[in-house]
Amino acid sequence: MTTTGLTLRAPYLLFVGEEHRPTYAKTARGIADWRRKLCMGQLRLTDNAVDLGLEDCDVSAAVRAGAGSLIVGTAPVGGRIPDNWIPILAEAARAGLDIVAGLHTRLSSIPDLVQAASEGGVALVDVRVPPAELPVGSGRKRSGNRVLTVGTDCALGKKYTALQLERDLRDAGVKATFRASGQTGIMIAGSGIPMDCVVADFISGAAELLSPDNDEDHWDVIEGQGGIFHPGYAAVSHGLLLGSQPDAFVVCHATGRRHIEGWDGFALPTIDDVIERTIAIGRLTNPAIRCVGISINTQSMDERGRWRYQQSLSDKYGLPCVDPLRDGTGAIVQALQTMGG
Amino acid sequence: MTTTGLTLRAPYLLFVGEEHRPTYAKTARGIADWRRKLCMGQLRLTDNAVDLGLEDCDVSAAVRAGAGSLIVGTAPVGGRIPDNWIPILAEAARAGLDIVAGLHTRLSSIPDLVQAASEGGVALVDVRVPPAELPVGSGRKRSGNRVLTVGTDCALGKKYTALQLERDLRDAGVKATFRASGQTGIMIAGSGIPMDCVVADFISGAAELLSPDNDEDHWDVIEGQGGIFHPGYAAVSHGLLLGSQPDAFVVCHATGRRHIEGWDGFALPTIDDVIERTIAIGRLTNPAIRCVGISINTQSMDERGRWRYQQSLSDKYGLPCVDPLRDGTGAIVQALQTMGG
Repeated sequence: MTTTGLTLRAPYLLFVGEEHRPTYAKTARGIADWRRKLCMGQLRLTDNAVDLGLEDCDVSAAVRAGAGSLIVGTAPVGGRIPDNWIPILAEAARAGLDIVAGLHTRLSSIPDLVQAASEGGVALVDVRVPPAELPVGSGRKRSGNRVLTVGTDCALGKKYTALQLERDLRDAGVKATFRASGQTGIMIAGSGIPMDCVVADFISGAAELLSPDNDEDHWDVIEGQGGIFHPGYAAVSHGLLLGSQPDAFVVCHATGRRHIEGWDGFALPTIDDVIERTIAIGRLTNPAIRCVGISINTQSMDERGRWRYQQSLSDKYGLPCVDPLRDGTGAIVQALQTMGG
Repeated sequence: MTTTGLTLRAPYLLFVGEEHRPTYAKTARGIADWRRKLCMGQLRLTDNAVDLGLEDCDVSAAVRAGAGSLIVGTAPVGGRIPDNWIPILAEAARAGLDIVAGLHTRLSSIPDLVQAASEGGVALVDVRVPPAELPVGSGRKRSGNRVLTVGTDCALGKKYTALQLERDLRDAGVKATFRASGQTGIMIAGSGIPMDCVVADFISGAAELLSPDNDEDHWDVIEGQGGIFHPGYAAVSHGLLLGSQPDAFVVCHATGRRHIEGWDGFALPTIDDVIERTIAIGRLTNPAIRCVGISINTQSMDERGRWRYQQSLSDKYGLPCVDPLRDGTGAIVQALQTMGG
């Protein structure tokens, strides 16, 4: 059961550079949080750089310890690799580490890195680059089970909900695989397809490749993108939904958000709206599609307030409602277990 | 009022090569039918090649007559430029003609043509290449009026309906511009954006560029793509709909079609389905969106049968229903005239 697309070589040396702001190091943090066993160390260029709680390692120590890849886990300003990083990345490449990044500037556009990678016999992996030769979506039904995370907006927990679902499904003894559709997710999963970078005609075809045929009792947990009511990104969400042909979906939402973030003229859709539209569209490739839970980012609420709020949503929709970071997703996993294979 | 994207330099020399099958020369035919005044001649390599009814011209005659571009108006097998064409295209480029094509093989990947274009100081125009640096869709309301052609499937008349609407609007004294979203349409219009080739994140942003702010009494007639119930291409249709923010749309349909062409497991949606879903989605960026007509390809029906059928649809939906090739689109133009500025 392999998915097409890139695959990263573990274990990882997480490169943090000089970044001291946690928000800008969230890719490194995500990998360290969700794939700790695949991380062998961190490479920080200054003492005040973000500490992921991994062993500090320079390139030669990482090589001796058997590292497979150096992953650039920060988002430098302008998406450009700073000049002072290049000799370090080149040294790592020459020493045998694949170099992985998801920046606007392609690694393969930096001659020193191309040369070093050639000398070291390693790969320069740009996770923003989708596979070549993608197919058009066929709509063919695939074996196995699929759950997709969708959202009332971008950046409110679709990726983390999917990762927590994978973890909780596995803890419950269910075969499950997180399928990454965006660059941070891909770095965490070590594989996937960056849906937002795929050419328009191939969006649903790429989504089909992302969750290939699988065992009847296996669940693919597919990371959603965008939002089906998003004025900028709804097309991506639509194609990902059709190609994922999910049996089940979870709606992700964040308390306190009133408008599409960055699109002030656009009110956030309600959870009802998202459920209804997702079923209306998703039915085309999976007539049995249904909503199995609500995932709420309740960061801004106290324990009592958030409990009441979640309970009210759960009552209203007759669905489990969790904050995945506070509750886990066990209640949703139970719902999935009554469905799958 | 300019649109971003490529623009072709008229008048055109239409290159037909050796192609004797009308279906494979439909781009050349479309340009000759819809933009005859921009065509100064045809270049055919064999006597039995498709005759567009234009003056036969070789390259030097075309140059003397002031041609601006040579347009490859056929679809050679495999999307590759045959070897024997290259010296002819190179001669045209050296003589000062832009070379225009929409094939899989990029003109710019053929060294002899690149060299010739450089010597002639002309452009190699691949109409499949979208503009660089596209924006994400903003959802901002633009001035002027817009009508979009949508369909129950691909390849049933969305482009021709839009072209006929442009012609009939102008004949009625209404300012109107056909906005091309696919390669054949772009060659006919001389400008446009190939929506199917745009990267996923920028689909609605590209559609916004395609029909920029315009006069309050002007209509943009936007060529639709794909189909909102198409398992392969619905994402493109969704993004184009959001970015077009149409005030009005026309549903295109072909009699006798039962399934999505090439996707036998998928029943064709009904016209109702398409109207309802188009309004549901399009409302996000234009709450006033409405259906103003039905365009039917009745090729397979006799005059009496098609008249009855069109009348029954018109009665059912309370909308004008035309076969644009047999009736023109005057009835729909009347509906638009009651709306616009």
